[in-house]
Amino acid sequence: MDDYLNLLPYWDKLNENEKALTAENHTIRKFTKGSKIFGSESCLGMIYVLSGNIRVYILSEEGREITLFRFKKGDSCVLSSSCAINQINFDTYMEAETDCELLVVNSSTFKFLTDNNIYVRCYMYESLSERFSSVMWTMQQILFLRMDQRLATFLVSEYERTGRDEINMTHEQIAVYINSAREVVARMMKRFSTDGLVELKRGKVIISDVEGLKNLIREV
Amino acid sequence: MDDYLNLLPYWDKLNENEKALTAENHTIRKFTKGSKIFGSESCLGMIYVLSGNIRVYILSEEGREITLFRFKKGDSCVLSSSCAINQINFDTYMEAETDCELLVVNSSTFKFLTDNNIYVRCYMYESLSERFSSVMWTMQQILFLRMDQRLATFLVSEYERTGRDEINMTHEQIAVYINSAREVVARMMKRFSTDGLVELKRGKVIISDVEGLKNLIREV
Repeated sequence: MDDYLNLLPYWDKLNENEKALTAENHTIRKFTKGSKIFGSESCLGMIYVLSGNIRVYILSEEGREITLFRFKKGDSCVLSSSCAINQINFDTYMEAETDCELLVVNSSTFKFLTDNNIYVRCYMYESLSERFSSVMWTMQQILFLRMDQRLATFLVSEYERTGRDEINMTHEQIAVYINSAREVVARMMKRFSTDGLVELKRGKVIISDVEGLKNLIREV
Repeated sequence: MDDYLNLLPYWDKLNENEKALTAENHTIRKFTKGSKIFGSESCLGMIYVLSGNIRVYILSEEGREITLFRFKKGDSCVLSSSCAINQINFDTYMEAETDCELLVVNSSTFKFLTDNNIYVRCYMYESLSERFSSVMWTMQQILFLRMDQRLATFLVSEYERTGRDEINMTHEQIAVYINSAREVVARMMKRFSTDGLVELKRGKVIISDVEGLKNLIREV
């Protein structure tokens, strides 16, 4: 039996038959950066990420993408098996943000496991509940925050996450993170720069005034 | 032991101790129409609705409300116990849309049950997953509202232009006409079809209810 199977979050809760079934019905799939992993028309299965980063999104009115959340090496996702989950009736799309290697348990096998094993079922719903929280955060950002506040929120959270005042990302990359367009980010950055909140360099942003950004987020 | 306790979705899965604990730590709460049941500052507990309708919403800092979903007699909700759920880190608010009578299991008791009983835990996450779907539907409604009206407008204008109820175009061709993506048109068409507005055939659309489409366009 392949070593990586015990990386599955519910592996220890499977009986011998269920382990054998999973061993027979999984695949290792590789996706290159930028490729579509999953769309509304297919139902890949339950995913465990062996390497790489994945972005999950929905499509807006004009085919614009709204990023819901991301997941990475060591994370798993069950939304890619939504055809096997009665409670989920919305379409999501997934894209490889970097080259990816995924362990995929096919949908019918995953459905068999969730139907028959309370621990796998509980894992599935718990995983969806976590995604629910991520999506609510995104939804509140889009609905309630002005674009400048979304950008400030992103800069402050990157600052706090990395502990560095230098963010090595282009305007285009930042735009994808905050569900906006490059032009909008460029315009905001110029304003932030004029206001002394950031300093702009080629391919990166230096935060000059964290407190100023935090105040902007709190503005009504 | 009170008769209504066996209405709890997980009652049959509790052992005698857990049943006794629940019997000791629940209340029946009455709320009048329009009153606030629950806000971010409190954590009421797990709710089962004995009578009435409840609306769940989020609030922007300026006080703007977005309704996420509603629930009614016979439904239960665990978001009102979110302080006891690690995966949920967003605030929701609940309001009685009619006079309500609620069976409430207090949060610490509910947390004890979900921590110790895999079936209650699974019920909790399953319930959240269903809410996730409702919220995604709401989110897409908000983001895509113009879209369904544009699609309806296109269908009605084709109907009036040609005088025929059959439109010989693929979803992709229609998407080009209304500045959208094929996937978005496909999703809307599926909804229109479910609502009895159109009938979908390979490579064409048959309009079943022109007045229904016109009403949709006029909706605000």
